[in-house]
Amino acid sequence: MKPVGPIPPGFAAIDGELAIGGMTASQLIAQAGASPLFVYSRTMLEARIAQLRAALPPRVNINYAIKANPLRQIVEFMSDLVDGFDIASGGELALAQAAGLDLARLSFAGPGKRDVELAAAIAAGVTLNVESASELRRALKLGDAAGLAPRLALRVNPDFELRGSGMKMGGGAKPFGIDQSEIPAVAAELLAAGAEFRGLHIFTGSQSLDTQAIIETQSNVLALADRLAGDIGQALPKLNMGGGFGIPYFHGDTPIDLAAIGQALAEQLGHLPDTLADTELCIELGRYLVGEAGVYLTTVLDRKESHGDTYLVTDGGLHHQLAASGNFGTVVRRNYPVAIATRFTAEPQETASVVGCLCTPLDRLADKAHLPRADVGDIVAVFCAGAYGATASPAAFLGQGPAREILL
Amino acid sequence: MKPVGPIPPGFAAIDGELAIGGMTASQLIAQAGASPLFVYSRTMLEARIAQLRAALPPRVNINYAIKANPLRQIVEFMSDLVDGFDIASGGELALAQAAGLDLARLSFAGPGKRDVELAAAIAAGVTLNVESASELRRALKLGDAAGLAPRLALRVNPDFELRGSGMKMGGGAKPFGIDQSEIPAVAAELLAAGAEFRGLHIFTGSQSLDTQAIIETQSNVLALADRLAGDIGQALPKLNMGGGFGIPYFHGDTPIDLAAIGQALAEQLGHLPDTLADTELCIELGRYLVGEAGVYLTTVLDRKESHGDTYLVTDGGLHHQLAASGNFGTVVRRNYPVAIATRFTAEPQETASVVGCLCTPLDRLADKAHLPRADVGDIVAVFCAGAYGATASPAAFLGQGPAREILL
Repeated sequence: MKPVGPIPPGFAAIDGELAIGGMTASQLIAQAGASPLFVYSRTMLEARIAQLRAALPPRVNINYAIKANPLRQIVEFMSDLVDGFDIASGGELALAQAAGLDLARLSFAGPGKRDVELAAAIAAGVTLNVESASELRRALKLGDAAGLAPRLALRVNPDFELRGSGMKMGGGAKPFGIDQSEIPAVAAELLAAGAEFRGLHIFTGSQSLDTQAIIETQSNVLALADRLAGDIGQALPKLNMGGGFGIPYFHGDTPIDLAAIGQALAEQLGHLPDTLADTELCIELGRYLVGEAGVYLTTVLDRKESHGDTYLVTDGGLHHQLAASGNFGTVVRRNYPVAIATRFTAEPQETASVVGCLCTPLDRLADKAHLPRADVGDIVAVFCAGAYGATASPAAFLGQGPAREILL
Repeated sequence: MKPVGPIPPGFAAIDGELAIGGMTASQLIAQAGASPLFVYSRTMLEARIAQLRAALPPRVNINYAIKANPLRQIVEFMSDLVDGFDIASGGELALAQAAGLDLARLSFAGPGKRDVELAAAIAAGVTLNVESASELRRALKLGDAAGLAPRLALRVNPDFELRGSGMKMGGGAKPFGIDQSEIPAVAAELLAAGAEFRGLHIFTGSQSLDTQAIIETQSNVLALADRLAGDIGQALPKLNMGGGFGIPYFHGDTPIDLAAIGQALAEQLGHLPDTLADTELCIELGRYLVGEAGVYLTTVLDRKESHGDTYLVTDGGLHHQLAASGNFGTVVRRNYPVAIATRFTAEPQETASVVGCLCTPLDRLADKAHLPRADVGDIVAVFCAGAYGATASPAAFLGQGPAREILL
C-alpha cells in the first residue's frame, strides 16, 4: 500500500459524492458531455488570490504565469484578479491578445525566442525579459526595423538557488537569463541603445514548500537587485522577484506559511535601499494560483484482478496527467492526491491501482492506493490538476485526444 | 562530457551537411517553411520492411502498431508494405478508416476501451483484442445490440516477460490482458456466445535489444499459445506474437540480430504442434519499423555561456521530443543520437548542451555533448525520432504548438 497525497482544502461532498461548486462529479461530467474532464473552480481561484492579497504587502503585485494553465476562460477570469501576466511564447501572446488582456501588463520570458515572437511582442508593447546579450541585440534590431523602442527587462541567472525547489532556475550554469556577473555590461548596452529599461527578472526556482527558503531567497533577490542596480547606475523601474511558492502534491507535504512569507517581506520592504524605493515589485506565480483549483475526473471502464492485484482502468490517463503518472520531472513516482469521487466520504476498503486507458505501463494515476471499493462507472478524481495538466501532457498520444475542461 | 547515442545507418552528407532523401537539412526546413521539423524517409521505411521480410519466415506476417507514428501519410504508405495494423483507440480507428486501410486487417488492443470505441470497432469488422472478462461481456452485448458477431481475440497476460525490454507487458500483475490462467474460462464464454474467435494476442514487452531474450520469448509465446489452445480445445486461427524488437538509442546500445531471430523462428515453425499448424502468425512492430526512419530538426536560436558551460538554445524541445529530453519512461537521463546537421561531417570541437525553447530545466535535448562548434542559425538533428515523438510529447505546452512533419 502506498499513500496518496493530501486532498487540498475546500472540497465538499453531496450525498457522499465529491462536489465542486455545488455540483457532484457525476453531474459535472453529465453537463460536460463526457469524461475525462478537468473542472476548475472560480471560487477557489478567488480564494487563493484573496489569501495572497491578505498576506503580502499591498505594494507587491501578483502576476499570473499563463503557462501554468492557459485555458482562455481562466486567463480572462484572472485578468480582474491579478496585476499582470507572464507569457512564455508567441502562442501565449496571441492568447493574451485574444483574451483582451492589457498588453502593457505582460512580460515575456523564455530562453529561446524566435524573431517573429520578439517582433510581435515589441509591436504589442510587451516587456521582454531578455535572456542573453545576443537576444538583446536581436530585440534592438527588430525594434529599430519597426521604429519602436522595445521595453526590455533583463533576466538574471542568480548565483543562488531557491532551496527545496522542484525546478531549479538559478545557482550555477543555466540556460535561463544572463549570469549576474554579466548584467552590468548587458544593461549598459541596452541603455546606450535607447531602449526602455524595465528592470530585472530574477527567477530562482519553482515548487518549493520550504517557507524559510522562500523568505531567504526573497531577501537574496532584493539584495542582488540592489547591488545590480548600483552597478547599472540606475534605480530599477520594476523587479520581478520570481515565484517558487509550492503546493502539496505528495504524502507528507505541508503547505507553505503564507503569513510568515508576507510578514518577512513586509519587514524587508520597510527598509529598502534607494535603488528599490520606487521600484514596482511583483511576484510571478502559476502553479500556486491555479494548481489546487483544478480536479481531473475520469470514469472507471474496467475493474480487474491480475495475480492478486486490483486495477481500476479508467478512460483517462497520462495523456492528460503526465505529471500525476510520475513521468514529468520526478525521479521517484509518488501518488498524487487521488480519490473515488463517487464514494468520496466512504472509508478505504481495499488496495487498488488506478491506471489510464493507454497501452503502456507508464500510464498509472495511482499505485497501490488505499481506496473505497470502486467498480465500473465509478469516477476517480485526481486533485492538484489545475496547473501543468492538460497542456503539459501528450494529448494526442495513442489517438485519445484532449480532455474536456470547464471553469465553474 | 557525456556520450551521445549512435546515429542510425543510412544518413548521408551533401557539402558537409546532413542529407535525407537527397536534400540537406537546410533545404528540408526551407521546403517545409520552418523548423522544428520531423522528416521521415520512405526509403528507410521500405528498407526496414525489406530487412524484416528477408530475415523472417515468409509465413510470419508483419503488423504495424499505428501508435508509434500515426502520421496519416506514413499509415497510408505502410498499407502497401505491411500485412496488418494494430490500433489503440477509437481515434486510431477513425484514422485507419480515413486512410482507407482494409479494416479486416486491423486489431484493436488497449486496457480501457469505451463502449463507443468497442461498438465502432465491431461495426467495422475490426478484431478486438479483449483485455478482460468484463470487456468480453461488454463487446458481446454491443454485438448483440448491433446484430453482429464480434471478431474477438484474447489478449494474454503471460507469466513470463521479455527480458531486457524497456516496457514490460508481461510477467506478474499487469493491467494488460487476461492472466494466462484465466484464458480457458474466458475463451469458453466467448465461444459459447457465438462470437468469432480470432485467437490470441501475447505481448510480453517492447524495446528489447537482447537478441537471445527475443528468441527465447518467441519460443515461450509459441509454447504458451499451444498450451492455451489445448486448454481451449481449439486450434488457433491467429496468433499475434507481440513485438519487442528494440532500436539503439544510447551510447553502447547495439542493434538486434535480425537474421538470428529469423533463423530461430524458422526452426520453431518447422515443428509446430497441431494447434498452431494452420495458425496465421504475426509480429506486431511499431518503433522498430519507423523509429530510425525519422529525424527531428531544430534551429539554434541562441548560443550562450553560463558559468563556463555552453548552451545551444533551439526552437524545438521536449514539447516534440519528450523521450529524448529524458522525461518519458527513463529513470536516468542519457543522450539520444544528436548531431549538428549543418556541420554533419565536422569533427567535434567543444562540449555543449542542447536545450529547447521552453522555460523549464527539463527541456534538454543533449547534455554536455561533444559537438562541432555551432552558432545561431545552425540546425540540430535528433535521430531516432520516427517513433513516439510528435504524438508522445506535450505539443501544447507553453503555447508552442506542434512541429511540422514531412514524409520524403
